[in-house]
Amino acid sequence: MSDEWLDTIKWDSQGLLPAIAQDSETGRVLMFAWMNRESLRLTIEEGRAVYWSRSRNQLWRKGEESGNVQELKAIELDCDGDVVLLHVKQLGNVACHTGRNSCFYRRLNEANEWVTVEGVLKSPEDMYKR
Amino acid sequence: MSDEWLDTIKWDSQGLLPAIAQDSETGRVLMFAWMNRESLRLTIEEGRAVYWSRSRNQLWRKGEESGNVQELKAIELDCDGDVVLLHVKQLGNVACHTGRNSCFYRRLNEANEWVTVEGVLKSPEDMYKR
Repeated sequence: MSDEWLDTIKWDSQGLLPAIAQDSETGRVLMFAWMNRESLRLTIEEGRAVYWSRSRNQLWRKGEESGNVQELKAIELDCDGDVVLLHVKQLGNVACHTGRNSCFYRRLNEANEWVTVEGVLKSPEDMYKR
Repeated sequence: MSDEWLDTIKWDSQGLLPAIAQDSETGRVLMFAWMNRESLRLTIEEGRAVYWSRSRNQLWRKGEESGNVQELKAIELDCDGDVVLLHVKQLGNVACHTGRNSCFYRRLNEANEWVTVEGVLKSPEDMYKR
């Protein structure tokens, strides 16, 4: 199969691409991560989100430890060709390593304080103990 | 007013922060851009999305030319403190410089081709001629 779809993408100077994951059922934006060329190819081949961990410097199959796999429903590319939006089914309903549905669980209030607005659905100890 | 809310953020090595804009009414993810400290402060002070243009190296009040202002409804910070999600009311219903609602208007089909799935609502010539 041709790699034209991968060549269309404008990878940054480090060969990376910002990726946004959105829940295909609720519309909630779940998380933001990075992909390299191999992780994007694997995401499509395997039908699940595979990111590139910049801190660990390795492929990161979302849910490989926690079980909170993101099944890919659709993927969209932005006008500049340098960001992708993944529509995913979030298994376990938890995308965040803190055990919450979304990583964006802190909201700025009128006093300019970041306030936690989402509860923990699953304890991190339970998610990562296996 | 204290700047603690700005100090909470983990700015990258260039002092920037990825920002995702989501339509507060439809849930559609509209665009992805970058902010620096000043642009985030102005976003809150002015109640509208103000980004940092990396290509032009200057503040970018979204809609300043096109009129397609993004009114801020809420802003959320992710678990790592290094990405923000803006919930906005998109004036003119157009976020993309191509005249579409969302910048994410190309979707990968089963033959691995990026296919345009959103129409142009307003011609770019009309948006930027003033």
